[in-house]
Amino acid sequence: MDALEAILTRRSIRKYKNDPVDEVTIRMLLAAAMSAPSARNQQCWRFVVVTDRPTLEALATVHPYAKTLKEEPLAVLVCGDLDAEQTPDFWVQDCAAATQNLLVAANALGLGTVWLGCHPRADRVRGIQELLGIPKTVVPLSLVAVGRSDEVKGTEDRYDEKKVHYDRW
Amino acid sequence: MDALEAILTRRSIRKYKNDPVDEVTIRMLLAAAMSAPSARNQQCWRFVVVTDRPTLEALATVHPYAKTLKEEPLAVLVCGDLDAEQTPDFWVQDCAAATQNLLVAANALGLGTVWLGCHPRADRVRGIQELLGIPKTVVPLSLVAVGRSDEVKGTEDRYDEKKVHYDRW
Repeated sequence: MDALEAILTRRSIRKYKNDPVDEVTIRMLLAAAMSAPSARNQQCWRFVVVTDRPTLEALATVHPYAKTLKEEPLAVLVCGDLDAEQTPDFWVQDCAAATQNLLVAANALGLGTVWLGCHPRADRVRGIQELLGIPKTVVPLSLVAVGRSDEVKGTEDRYDEKKVHYDRW
Repeated sequence: MDALEAILTRRSIRKYKNDPVDEVTIRMLLAAAMSAPSARNQQCWRFVVVTDRPTLEALATVHPYAKTLKEEPLAVLVCGDLDAEQTPDFWVQDCAAATQNLLVAANALGLGTVWLGCHPRADRVRGIQELLGIPKTVVPLSLVAVGRSDEVKGTEDRYDEKKVHYDRW
């Protein structure tokens, strides 16, 4: 799919078919995520790929907006490893950029996604860390549900001239 | 350009030709940025498009890593409007996702970019706000230099299996 099309047609999908996502596709989504820039190229992102059905269902209970995980085949958790951070306080931006690459790549590959925010909500962070055995210094930033979409959503043109200033505010 | 190619071949560019970037392209970069998801779809991002030469040169002095702005034709400042934020503390992620879309779209359109981090470095935030007359509640997150690349950078495969866990940490 064309890059601009993949960016402009990406929508948040909350209904999925339960078809599995193959390993080659998962590898490609992760490679896309890891191609994001990061502060001083620190790449302190970490990923947990969840396909295990009971674990997906448990995730749906520890995150308040993750009910969709009950019916979809894959979740990718994007975390920042604070021990690996070289430029303090930039890990959130780095991991958000990685997440966005993952969403756009999935759309290009015909898959739907939804970005479920974790950090800075302490209850979500703690619940997911405990469930998946993640160390305290590795902080979940986003939980991305991935799967074949089972809903029809059109393109939405969000361009808004009022949000753009030229040369000065 | 293919979406995966645009994501995987994006590199940070620090040497630019001074050819101007046309208005249609700038509009497309902004539309790509505004197509990112945001917490509860709050879209509290704001943009300042800078093409004025003295302003670009002044930006190069208030940001410690923005020397490249002295020779390139365009910078896009991505800010979060805290007064417009509906889901507290998610504006950084939203604006980072918008920035990443902008970088990938630029690469697809044959343009180089580099993401220059602002928030949470208070001196950069304040310096840019003062220079461009931005209100205190509108916080610069990233300053993106955009232009035709004047350096040759190959693709870098950053995929790292050690950063991936399956089902549990």
